[in-house]
Amino acid sequence: MEALDYHAEERRKAEFDLEEMKIVWAGSRQNYEISDRMARLVASDPVFRKDNRTMLSRKDLFKDTLRKAAHAWKRIIELRLSEEEAHMLRSYVDQPAFTDLHWGMFIPAIKGQGTEEQHEKWLPMAYKMQIIGCYAQTELGHGSNVQGLETTATFDPQTDEFVIHSPTLTSSKWWPGGLGKVSTHAVVYARLITGVQDHGVHGFIVQLRSLDDHSPLPGITVGDIGMKFGSGAYNSMDNGLLRFDHVRIPRNQMLMRVSQVTREGKFVQSDVPRQLVYGTMVYVRQTIVSDASCALARAVCIATRYSAVRRQFGSQNGGPETQVIDYKTQQSRLFPLLASAYAFRFVGEWLKWLYADVTQRLQANDFSTLPEAHACTAGLKSMTTSVTADAIEECRKLCGGHGYLSNSGLPELFAVYIPTCTYEGDNVVLLLQVARFLMKTVSQLGSGKKPVGTTAYMGRAEHLMQCRCEVERAEDWLKPSVILEAFEARAFRMSIACAKNLSKFSNPEDGFSELSPDLLEAAIAHCQLIVVSKYIEKLQQDIPGKGVKRQLEILCNVYALHLLHKHLGDFVTTSCITPKQGALANEQLRLLYSQVRPNAITLVDAFNYTDHYLGSVLGCYNGNVYQRLYEEAWKDPLNDTVVPDGYLEYVRPILKQHIRTARL
Amino acid sequence: MEALDYHAEERRKAEFDLEEMKIVWAGSRQNYEISDRMARLVASDPVFRKDNRTMLSRKDLFKDTLRKAAHAWKRIIELRLSEEEAHMLRSYVDQPAFTDLHWGMFIPAIKGQGTEEQHEKWLPMAYKMQIIGCYAQTELGHGSNVQGLETTATFDPQTDEFVIHSPTLTSSKWWPGGLGKVSTHAVVYARLITGVQDHGVHGFIVQLRSLDDHSPLPGITVGDIGMKFGSGAYNSMDNGLLRFDHVRIPRNQMLMRVSQVTREGKFVQSDVPRQLVYGTMVYVRQTIVSDASCALARAVCIATRYSAVRRQFGSQNGGPETQVIDYKTQQSRLFPLLASAYAFRFVGEWLKWLYADVTQRLQANDFSTLPEAHACTAGLKSMTTSVTADAIEECRKLCGGHGYLSNSGLPELFAVYIPTCTYEGDNVVLLLQVARFLMKTVSQLGSGKKPVGTTAYMGRAEHLMQCRCEVERAEDWLKPSVILEAFEARAFRMSIACAKNLSKFSNPEDGFSELSPDLLEAAIAHCQLIVVSKYIEKLQQDIPGKGVKRQLEILCNVYALHLLHKHLGDFVTTSCITPKQGALANEQLRLLYSQVRPNAITLVDAFNYTDHYLGSVLGCYNGNVYQRLYEEAWKDPLNDTVVPDGYLEYVRPILKQHIRTARL
Repeated sequence: MEALDYHAEERRKAEFDLEEMKIVWAGSRQNYEISDRMARLVASDPVFRKDNRTMLSRKDLFKDTLRKAAHAWKRIIELRLSEEEAHMLRSYVDQPAFTDLHWGMFIPAIKGQGTEEQHEKWLPMAYKMQIIGCYAQTELGHGSNVQGLETTATFDPQTDEFVIHSPTLTSSKWWPGGLGKVSTHAVVYARLITGVQDHGVHGFIVQLRSLDDHSPLPGITVGDIGMKFGSGAYNSMDNGLLRFDHVRIPRNQMLMRVSQVTREGKFVQSDVPRQLVYGTMVYVRQTIVSDASCALARAVCIATRYSAVRRQFGSQNGGPETQVIDYKTQQSRLFPLLASAYAFRFVGEWLKWLYADVTQRLQANDFSTLPEAHACTAGLKSMTTSVTADAIEECRKLCGGHGYLSNSGLPELFAVYIPTCTYEGDNVVLLLQVARFLMKTVSQLGSGKKPVGTTAYMGRAEHLMQCRCEVERAEDWLKPSVILEAFEARAFRMSIACAKNLSKFSNPEDGFSELSPDLLEAAIAHCQLIVVSKYIEKLQQDIPGKGVKRQLEILCNVYALHLLHKHLGDFVTTSCITPKQGALANEQLRLLYSQVRPNAITLVDAFNYTDHYLGSVLGCYNGNVYQRLYEEAWKDPLNDTVVPDGYLEYVRPILKQHIRTARL
Repeated sequence: MEALDYHAEERRKAEFDLEEMKIVWAGSRQNYEISDRMARLVASDPVFRKDNRTMLSRKDLFKDTLRKAAHAWKRIIELRLSEEEAHMLRSYVDQPAFTDLHWGMFIPAIKGQGTEEQHEKWLPMAYKMQIIGCYAQTELGHGSNVQGLETTATFDPQTDEFVIHSPTLTSSKWWPGGLGKVSTHAVVYARLITGVQDHGVHGFIVQLRSLDDHSPLPGITVGDIGMKFGSGAYNSMDNGLLRFDHVRIPRNQMLMRVSQVTREGKFVQSDVPRQLVYGTMVYVRQTIVSDASCALARAVCIATRYSAVRRQFGSQNGGPETQVIDYKTQQSRLFPLLASAYAFRFVGEWLKWLYADVTQRLQANDFSTLPEAHACTAGLKSMTTSVTADAIEECRKLCGGHGYLSNSGLPELFAVYIPTCTYEGDNVVLLLQVARFLMKTVSQLGSGKKPVGTTAYMGRAEHLMQCRCEVERAEDWLKPSVILEAFEARAFRMSIACAKNLSKFSNPEDGFSELSPDLLEAAIAHCQLIVVSKYIEKLQQDIPGKGVKRQLEILCNVYALHLLHKHLGDFVTTSCITPKQGALANEQLRLLYSQVRPNAITLVDAFNYTDHYLGSVLGCYNGNVYQRLYEEAWKDPLNDTVVPDGYLEYVRPILKQHIRTARL
């Protein structure tokens, strides 16, 4: 049974070197090895089992999460894992926990916004987890508009303290992960008040719970905000609510790297550039793009493997039915998502480089590329997470009825993924920021200020307004230069059209607001161009391994041409391509699907996901789907007894016609 | 507090007569009154409470469902409700239960496929619920391809019995609702075998469980298939698995209206037309379209009300921030969905008429309109349910972060709705049927056979291939004739383009398969045209009530123009409209949004949903959102204790640095 592989024949069809593709996917041989080691470590440890997760009650699920977090920490210490390894181990545990916020938000906030003195005091405790922290920014009534937060931190010069207070119901902190039940400390964002002056929102380190018995400190009301989307999923996290009733903290717990309050209560701005905040955002959002490619790849892996097992219709002479992966309708929905997973992977890789570049420049006090880098990461965060959220659900649909079962893994993956579209910048708000940046760039085109980075193409304004796509036959659409020009021209012309329409408004803000739906479309066109162009750049690198580069080229074309088809209206109405050229692209796309088909299973094998991590009966490596579905079904608590609880009280009286007298 | 209404000011803005609109929505005054009465009946009955549903374990949820089903049945008997009232009461209970399948599938299957003798024997027991039945068609390995089912029913002339058997693992019945734990009987679909002949799939009434103690009968293995998407949602249903080990039933339990097996084992076809099956499909799918408008309206109601409460950004001089419903980005996503809810409502109403018309014709042995009616309902079932599923999730996103909380009602609505896209015909498979019908219609255009019903427009081939849209100014897009012609021309030209491409293939089936993605798009264009044209027909009726018709016209235009914008590529590449005209449509759309805005809250009030039915903290009638969110949070089981279960074992050892020695 162990040697059974329903996908063996599919795997023999592959036209490329799988091991080399795994390294391409991981980014480097070293990444691959660490990732592989951590994934196996988690998969082989019974404490990290997750197959019964969706059946647990909220309390049991939460306790299970605390246990896994503690066990992960124990293993991290025992094995002396590096920070990177520890991070990877936690991500393979694949269950949102308070530790995500402690390591991902609390510590970075102190590092980024605290003084050296504050680093020395707080970081060692945090690294050892002697304190556990969270990031308390969002309020019940305030999310995207951080400057509208209501919580106050009023300086009391008498005692040299800040008084943290929640003046209204809507000022209650709401959503912070790890806050509800676990964190002992929080970085709390509050309006700084000295005297009668409001200095806007700043961060403060506040202890929430006793380190002795975990009870909330005086003046603090804290709890969990309740169940969230789905079963399992994010319900393992204690997203919390928090109210302050005049809670006092020492002055030195304000994070004072950028601004300070002196002993006398004077508000002082330091000479540390405020742009540093944007550097952190670039970092966080860059990791979100990488994570998007992982989540998308996971869904695609499940749907692809199941599509090769599932057969329906098309049986001839009593032979087996057709594998659903052979249907063009299935391919035209699935393969663009497979291509998107690779495309997002590569743009994520490039964003890592971008972050390193920005960091280096910041250290040299060069802020010139920061606005562009900020807009670009904001846009890519928005675009990749929106696509991934929709794609997970699309993959579920591609698994037909069985995709609706929890053990397909897709419902929970969807439920746990979708908040990514909201946190760290709501996706619509972010795209509007991109649009604003694009409009600014367009307005400066005549001024001699050259657009940089991912907007550099706008410098070729004249060419992009005039160029005509030269595609005459379907295969012309395989040329990277042709694709790139079409995407550049489309993005540019959409931006120009918006700018032109904006100029008709006497008040630019009214115009921006009125035209915002169009501006969103222009921003998306720009973001898609970035992904396409970074993929094409990737292909210009040296990529070893038999057939690997060829497969990546095919996927790159699938990615670009499926977008072209999806947004055909953009391309045609801006006269970037003709309707005929659009039809040729569609024709080429069909040919490309046939080229992906024999490699599909192996292309998802390259993600190197363990069955544990996939957590899907439909997506398991050996494809033994039906046997597993059948075995898993019997594990449902409803099958503990043959006759269900409630039969005597509620079913039998109906059948026996005793319902009118039944006590229900 | 009771009189509090945060939406009072919004409600004063309405420019139409709400009570009349409620009647338009319900279809008639009588429908409105029944619906209103049943909704209140359910909302006021404590047994039907559902606010803690997503927190229940599977077993507790299931028992709760049994209780509600029994209580509903009790009330139906006590109040002597009509069939229609009973159906409505069950739908307002809003918790999928075995009774849905008993009334919706088991009884109709016997009525439709049974002989009069069988009706007399089985229906009285079923109507009194002395037996409870389900519909066992789908198998583990077979869904859409009903003809591929593997379960066998072999006639044994020795004993005058059928032997029902599951020959393989994949032949296990899988998914039937009500099967897992409750049904005593099932209509089982199996391959009829007499001698060595296989007569294809037929229905058989099979008893599954003892009427005395509910234990499965000999040879029957039955159980629940396990957890499904989400918490709450469809987990209240015992979707089941079922295996037969040579189970014997009397010959007269084969449903014999259309075909019979004689005492001698001879297979006979009766002269009852087989097309009757399609009549039933038209009926079932027609109800699904109505239900789609309800589900969509529910999501839109929640998102619209919350969008009027939620404020973010745009505060001036310390005043309140801007209501998010005032942002054009919000309007451009929300209002088309509001318009779609009304559009689907009206097309659903028309489908009721169509079903009555088809039934009447069938009784007069007129089958001429059946293929068209079948294609049309298949297409509308597919299109409206796909749009609704996506729209529910879009509404959740429109509620920002708080939409992710279970008590927003949207996660469960999504989870419970999405299987509609799969059952009663997978949405992609259905669209391909529509496409096949369109291609047939096109191929017969020259033959003198006139296209009928919703394809009648294809009879004006010459005009539709030549016509040019005459829009010159944005307001030209308000003319129904202009809209209709653009949608007809686009649908027709897409069908013609597909037919042309198909003709290039020597084997038409290869062509159909190869071009299936394009064919899907043509089918969707046709379905959208139907909805638009039925909405326009509705507006030609007499609609009383101040301002009601005007609002419906605005929404009709929003519906049509947002589709035009979304599918701009279709319209422009087929030369139905010019890019300039597309831009004018977009301009008009923005103006229409401004006209919807003041009426938005009242337009969703017209759905007349109770707070109980909506089940949403964000969508409650009086808009007291934040207070409710805060109060609901504390009800989560995690808040039963201040210090969470697991703290001592798993959190304290970390904080106290005892993790290495902790027993985890």
